[in-house]
Amino acid sequence: MSPAASATTTETSDDAYRATERTVPTRSRERASWDRDLVHSVLDEGYVCHLGFVRDGAPVVLPTLYARVGERLYVHGSTGSRPLRGAGEEAGLPVCLTVTLVDGIVLARSAFHHSINYRSVVVHGTAYEVTDPAERATALDALVNHIVPGRADDSRRANAKELAATAVIRLDLEEVSAKIRSGGPNDDPEDLTLPYWSGVLPVVPAYGTPLPAVGLDPAIATPSYLTRRGEM
Amino acid sequence: MSPAASATTTETSDDAYRATERTVPTRSRERASWDRDLVHSVLDEGYVCHLGFVRDGAPVVLPTLYARVGERLYVHGSTGSRPLRGAGEEAGLPVCLTVTLVDGIVLARSAFHHSINYRSVVVHGTAYEVTDPAERATALDALVNHIVPGRADDSRRANAKELAATAVIRLDLEEVSAKIRSGGPNDDPEDLTLPYWSGVLPVVPAYGTPLPAVGLDPAIATPSYLTRRGEM
Repeated sequence: MSPAASATTTETSDDAYRATERTVPTRSRERASWDRDLVHSVLDEGYVCHLGFVRDGAPVVLPTLYARVGERLYVHGSTGSRPLRGAGEEAGLPVCLTVTLVDGIVLARSAFHHSINYRSVVVHGTAYEVTDPAERATALDALVNHIVPGRADDSRRANAKELAATAVIRLDLEEVSAKIRSGGPNDDPEDLTLPYWSGVLPVVPAYGTPLPAVGLDPAIATPSYLTRRGEM
Repeated sequence: MSPAASATTTETSDDAYRATERTVPTRSRERASWDRDLVHSVLDEGYVCHLGFVRDGAPVVLPTLYARVGERLYVHGSTGSRPLRGAGEEAGLPVCLTVTLVDGIVLARSAFHHSINYRSVVVHGTAYEVTDPAERATALDALVNHIVPGRADDSRRANAKELAATAVIRLDLEEVSAKIRSGGPNDDPEDLTLPYWSGVLPVVPAYGTPLPAVGLDPAIATPSYLTRRGEM
């Protein structure tokens, strides 16, 4: 979907983020998308993001968990952490939040055309601290349910002391784009007869057998939301 | 390993990166490490990094492939890409390169103690374009061999036209730290008898059956470096 197309009708505009100068890539533009459903699907399938911010003029990139609620992302952490403190300032914290899912390793006959099949989402914006207690509760539930669907109701929710130690920041989905590479290798025609294997090695999400905590009451069965996950 | 300990003997100093103000975390310091072997093992196991840089004062985080050769990381891309152009300037490009491996989802009885088992490496530094032809060749081989060990010798290496279109940047491993979380949940003592399952859901790297490219000569067998990978 091109940004020009997305601006022509209300219907399309509802389904796509508006492309901006920094969400239109200079390279491999055909891999870029602003489609809202696609962006949501990538954000919902991943659970670790890489959060970038600027500190003393230099970039910092840290991995962290996140969750999406509608058109808003949430990240949480200790009230003492650097980026979360920055988001607590009135001006907020300029961030870039990136989520990448790897789907396969692409082996071409030529070294040059080796690649990765992936789906990524890059969100540019300003992160702000969430102070409203109801929104904080929604965000914290979403963060737990995002890594393990249904888990918030099957654990002890945060108490006052834990809530006081936890900062939640929000980042609205406004300046967002996805980038996707899929399919087989793109070898040049003159390379197609070279004697090298070519194709895709799929990368698949996989989970091992759930390991109960030391001392867990043996009467507590492994929940179905964990055993099901192995079948994803 | 603490930064203080790492500075006490030559032997330890050889095996660890020197901790700096920005590689000592403000939080969960017990999870941080500057151990050289550990840093290398994380960098060698991963193959997608998140590269952060500053553009017009704002952070940008993009996923990309990388490879390590000794104490140097390489990233490549089109000569037209933004960060690679920046690294071609005489002053280089300040970057933060982060690699994250997810090992498990940690379910505690309390929502607050839910976590992820992970190993991550954060590299701060300045990236420069590599112009020496021999070093460029080494880097390009390393980039292919890093995603598929042994593949550089089993593919057509880049020709002059492809080399001219490819920029390679280097980032030395000087200001580096790892962060690790492993093991089971850290529930508070008073929560240990709550009726919620707790433990770890292991996340394991997994690969599907290699998919040959459309039109691949059926006489070309799937190479052992791919079938072996499924056993990792």
